[in-house]
Amino acid sequence: MLTLYIGNKNYSSWSMRPWVLMKQAGIAFEERMVRFEALEGDSGFKRTVLKVNPAGRVPVLVDDGFAIWDTMAIAEYLAERFPERQLWPADVRARARARSVCAEMHSGFTALRTHCPMNIEASLPQAGALAWRDQPGLRADVQRLVGMWTDLLQEHRGPMLFGDFSIADAFFAPVCMRLRTYQLPVPGPVTDYVRRVCALPGVKAWIDEALAEQDFLDFEEPYRTGRG
Amino acid sequence: MLTLYIGNKNYSSWSMRPWVLMKQAGIAFEERMVRFEALEGDSGFKRTVLKVNPAGRVPVLVDDGFAIWDTMAIAEYLAERFPERQLWPADVRARARARSVCAEMHSGFTALRTHCPMNIEASLPQAGALAWRDQPGLRADVQRLVGMWTDLLQEHRGPMLFGDFSIADAFFAPVCMRLRTYQLPVPGPVTDYVRRVCALPGVKAWIDEALAEQDFLDFEEPYRTGRG
Ligand SMILES: N[C@@H](CCC(=O)N[C@@H](CS)C(=O)NCC(=O)O)C(=O)O
Ligand SMILES: N[C@@H](CCC(=O)N[C@@H](CS)C(=O)NCC(=O)O)C(=O)O
Repeated sequence: MLTLYIGNKNYSSWSMRPWVLMKQAGIAFEERMVRFEALEGDSGFKRTVLKVNPAGRVPVLVDDGFAIWDTMAIAEYLAERFPERQLWPADVRARARARSVCAEMHSGFTALRTHCPMNIEASLPQAGALAWRDQPGLRADVQRLVGMWTDLLQEHRGPMLFGDFSIADAFFAPVCMRLRTYQLPVPGPVTDYVRRVCALPGVKAWIDEALAEQDFLDFEEPYRTGRG
Repeated sequence: MLTLYIGNKNYSSWSMRPWVLMKQAGIAFEERMVRFEALEGDSGFKRTVLKVNPAGRVPVLVDDGFAIWDTMAIAEYLAERFPERQLWPADVRARARARSVCAEMHSGFTALRTHCPMNIEASLPQAGALAWRDQPGLRADVQRLVGMWTDLLQEHRGPMLFGDFSIADAFFAPVCMRLRTYQLPVPGPVTDYVRRVCALPGVKAWIDEALAEQDFLDFEEPYRTGRG
């Protein structure tokens, strides 16, 4: 029995990755939502999460009482446990490349993550335009993304980064959300890829539930004072 | 034929991980050192690295012309290519746990990384004591490390984190260097583990070459004006 601990669907970009991966791959799991009421030491969020993950973060996958934390480790665990789902590309070099770009996402793109936090229900083109004008790091991150995706889509001929859906698309799904919310300027083939990702049933399900959530959290909202 | 691109041995904590992993596991490779002369866009470092890695960072492993970048992806690639070396623990749960803690290192411990940058040849107990006093994030990072290592060493009975040497020890080897350089206060069993890691032939070889390097780089030295 698999249980996935996640944060708020509207905001928790890391939670989105394994959730989308499992939905899209047809892996059954229960979900346990731990509301981001506050992320500090003594919050209910921290207390709940620390019971399963000593690192105190979501997502956490619990398999028959055994906890696996961190999206990278969860992805590898699922790839091993469900080999028939081909969560990584089958070809050894494509698989290595998929791992390189996922690891790059895992520890990088900090300007994009800082200035354009995931906020699925919001439409923030003005905040996006200002960040784009003022933050060279954001422009560099998007330039790297555009280069990466364009090359991979050409090499593997789409529709996903490595041909069929893989862990890599799940890892970049939250980035697709950010590109949409902040309407960052990207070339046509990238916009098309973002559209295809949003149309994946696993991604669409997450988006729909994020929209239904309606749980406005000040500390996740650098650009809004309310939903209005 | 494997070639590993690395940065300066005294400073490049990410480069140290796959280098130590391969040495310690007896995997033959050539090394290509790209001096950290400066990390900016138009430096020789960037130009050289960008030829093999569009993310512009070291380490990069090149296998017969094919580049794998990022330590996580390199570790997984090596584990697949040399299954007989058992780079990950053999047990499925131990392996999942090893991946969780490596991924935690990969994207976390930012206070430790910021305030105590790797600097193998330096001895900086005073800088360490000040950072320890003034940086709660550093104390939290070390507390998490101590908890993690203590639990793993107990559970797997040492001498390494998962019993025998694995990718996890290679991932934490640069942290051992930092604990030594800054003489951060940790309990006895942790100091003993650090000592055992430093005595591994693969780690010792890296340290010796770092000491021989003698290449002082201002922008990597928040606490020293020279070697003196
Ligand atoms: N490297 C982790 C990052 C997880 C992460 O930062 N999760 C956020 C929510 S999206 C969290 O739990 N934050 C709480 C905290 O940092 O205290 C992963 O890949 O799973
Ligand atoms: N997530 C990467 C981090 C690599 C990294 O940050 N490397 C540093 C040297 S230790 C680097 O190349 N810095 C150059 C730069 O950031 O421009 C990995 O795990 O390999």
